[in-house]
Amino acid sequence: MASSLLTTRTQALALTPGARRRGSPPATRVRFPSGVLPRRRALCVRASVAIEKETPESEPPPTFLREDGSGAGSGSVRERFETMIRRVQGEVCAALEEADGSGKRFVEDVWSRPGGGGGISRVLQDGRVFEKAGVNVSVVYGVMPPDAYRAAKGAAAGKNGAADGQKAGPVPFFAAGISSVLHPKNPFAPTLHFNYRYFETDAPKDAPGAPKQWWFGGGTDLTPSYIIEEDVKHFHSVQKQACDKFDPSFYPRFKKWCDDYFYIKHRNERRGLGGIFFDDLNDYDQEMLLGFATECADSVVPAYIPIIERRKDTSFTEEHKAWQQLRRGRYVEFNLVYDRGTTFGLKTGGRIESILVSLPLTARWQYDHAPEEGTEEWKLLDACINPKEWL
Amino acid sequence: MASSLLTTRTQALALTPGARRRGSPPATRVRFPSGVLPRRRALCVRASVAIEKETPESEPPPTFLREDGSGAGSGSVRERFETMIRRVQGEVCAALEEADGSGKRFVEDVWSRPGGGGGISRVLQDGRVFEKAGVNVSVVYGVMPPDAYRAAKGAAAGKNGAADGQKAGPVPFFAAGISSVLHPKNPFAPTLHFNYRYFETDAPKDAPGAPKQWWFGGGTDLTPSYIIEEDVKHFHSVQKQACDKFDPSFYPRFKKWCDDYFYIKHRNERRGLGGIFFDDLNDYDQEMLLGFATECADSVVPAYIPIIERRKDTSFTEEHKAWQQLRRGRYVEFNLVYDRGTTFGLKTGGRIESILVSLPLTARWQYDHAPEEGTEEWKLLDACINPKEWL
Repeated sequence: MASSLLTTRTQALALTPGARRRGSPPATRVRFPSGVLPRRRALCVRASVAIEKETPESEPPPTFLREDGSGAGSGSVRERFETMIRRVQGEVCAALEEADGSGKRFVEDVWSRPGGGGGISRVLQDGRVFEKAGVNVSVVYGVMPPDAYRAAKGAAAGKNGAADGQKAGPVPFFAAGISSVLHPKNPFAPTLHFNYRYFETDAPKDAPGAPKQWWFGGGTDLTPSYIIEEDVKHFHSVQKQACDKFDPSFYPRFKKWCDDYFYIKHRNERRGLGGIFFDDLNDYDQEMLLGFATECADSVVPAYIPIIERRKDTSFTEEHKAWQQLRRGRYVEFNLVYDRGTTFGLKTGGRIESILVSLPLTARWQYDHAPEEGTEEWKLLDACINPKEWL
Repeated sequence: MASSLLTTRTQALALTPGARRRGSPPATRVRFPSGVLPRRRALCVRASVAIEKETPESEPPPTFLREDGSGAGSGSVRERFETMIRRVQGEVCAALEEADGSGKRFVEDVWSRPGGGGGISRVLQDGRVFEKAGVNVSVVYGVMPPDAYRAAKGAAAGKNGAADGQKAGPVPFFAAGISSVLHPKNPFAPTLHFNYRYFETDAPKDAPGAPKQWWFGGGTDLTPSYIIEEDVKHFHSVQKQACDKFDPSFYPRFKKWCDDYFYIKHRNERRGLGGIFFDDLNDYDQEMLLGFATECADSVVPAYIPIIERRKDTSFTEEHKAWQQLRRGRYVEFNLVYDRGTTFGLKTGGRIESILVSLPLTARWQYDHAPEEGTEEWKLLDACINPKEWL
């Protein structure tokens, strides 16, 4: 999600010709003749107004923070959060590459923005185990248009003080986050999504003395095509352990929040089997919440990799694959219609390839499909309609 | 689009067990054991509030109109529009079945609503030529929530008198329409979408004397994966001929409207190569516009079938197919993020399978894909970024 928290409109087709390709052996990404790029840029310019866009970088900079006292070197929450998400990005990618076992490496795109901030997208596509795996970090300085602010905050955020007292004018903000969606090939290996983010709003321009606001958001959730109870229980128990280190109310509260959030209203079903989700969290000590977000992010590898190791080579039929593809269609529906980060990113003109890397490589929509009662497909659907307690 | 113009929330999983299956030989649709249905209904009831839903019908009724003086037997515009769209549905389906040539027939689902109105969805899936073809008609009596009314009218509708003077309260309305998306298998055979609809709002409940409003909307547009100029020119020339019979300003105006409407803002590209599109049209004689909508709907077969006949058996490679799948991903993005009818339908709880029959059977999202300059794929993308005059 955080990869989408950009306020400058960017060109959808902007390539990142100078982006460093990480890892060895060389990534198998298709490259285009150099003549393509200028022409493609020209296409963009012709078709859109002049807009600030991201600048490709050849190397990740030591920090994306501005040197303005609240940024690099200040020991601030901003700084420590950026350090954490970049460390986690590296650790998760290394674990995924090892699980993939193909020797394929994540391809990296790095970009910065003239006004400060930037991001690192890492994508592994068509591996042995993973169809598409994206792990992004980004840091954004910007000014939210009022409707994007509302989309980011969500309709239900009224209870949070951060939303109150804001006039319907542009809201300057800082955001940093890590966002990832991992789609394996095997229909018995579940899709994983996680995202942890930290927001600060600056003092409103028309009220310089007004207090700054901050909040944390995020979550980790599992989307299998088939229920393998051992896996779902393992996943939820790791989430609960992370939560319980901070507050016994967190797991039940954030588990329910997750079930409520990943709801495909027009289908009356959830995207998957949940996990934890929270947003606009600022009613605890800031240090405590930084620690909690860190703990959650550090739980991704132990929550997910053991499941992948168990399921990546499970044999399957064409029917299993077709059902997985239908569920991936639901994933697309949720992300494009409801997901706050995606809709916010599309509105504000974030780096489109980073935002939509969450979409699966392939998906399917079949008219009026309904699994037969009692089948494994039906059981999954039942659990998406009626969320269960897994622990 | 019109298939989605429903105001009662329906259950996403509702099956239509009594729906008549049209045609012979029998449709190859998968049927489920009878035991499935009660259980599935129970699932729905548990998971959603009590809501009015559509009732499956075994036969299409002679009319979906209420017998209230403005409906059946009145010679009204409502009545003649319903007659027209049902005739066109039959003719288009017959032409598509013949072009498909597999002997496969459209499967039909018929439903009605307790408060009046209903619809007929016809879907041909996995034919010889067509991957997925849906042709829906529907008639809706309802009360629009204010936000759905705004979505249906669109942000740009301010110029139209029908939008003015409406308070931000519920708006009773009547809508009828035909809506269709046809996705062929062959990457050189283009996708077609058409939709023609007629709206009337009733007098607002809090102002019984206020005048009723009416308007027409619709269009026909072509979405190829490859540009074959002969085909695109043929398609646009048939649209122009239909327009020119009524007003020489229509084709240029509605061609541009189409390019503007089917715009995927976050990609800065159009969904396809356009056609015609208009909405909120009421500043001409009502009879004239009924005639125009009829002419447009009658132009679907001559505009499209000759192209399908020419391209349905063109040989293609895996690369052609992969590019088609990527463009289908764009189709999904447009429909779920921007299409007024789809977003309106999802908000108001229309019959979800009818609304989302517009989505392709399969689609693909590949990270940061960009065609090489000068290739056929690049030419298509260029034309989607920079709309051309085809005639």
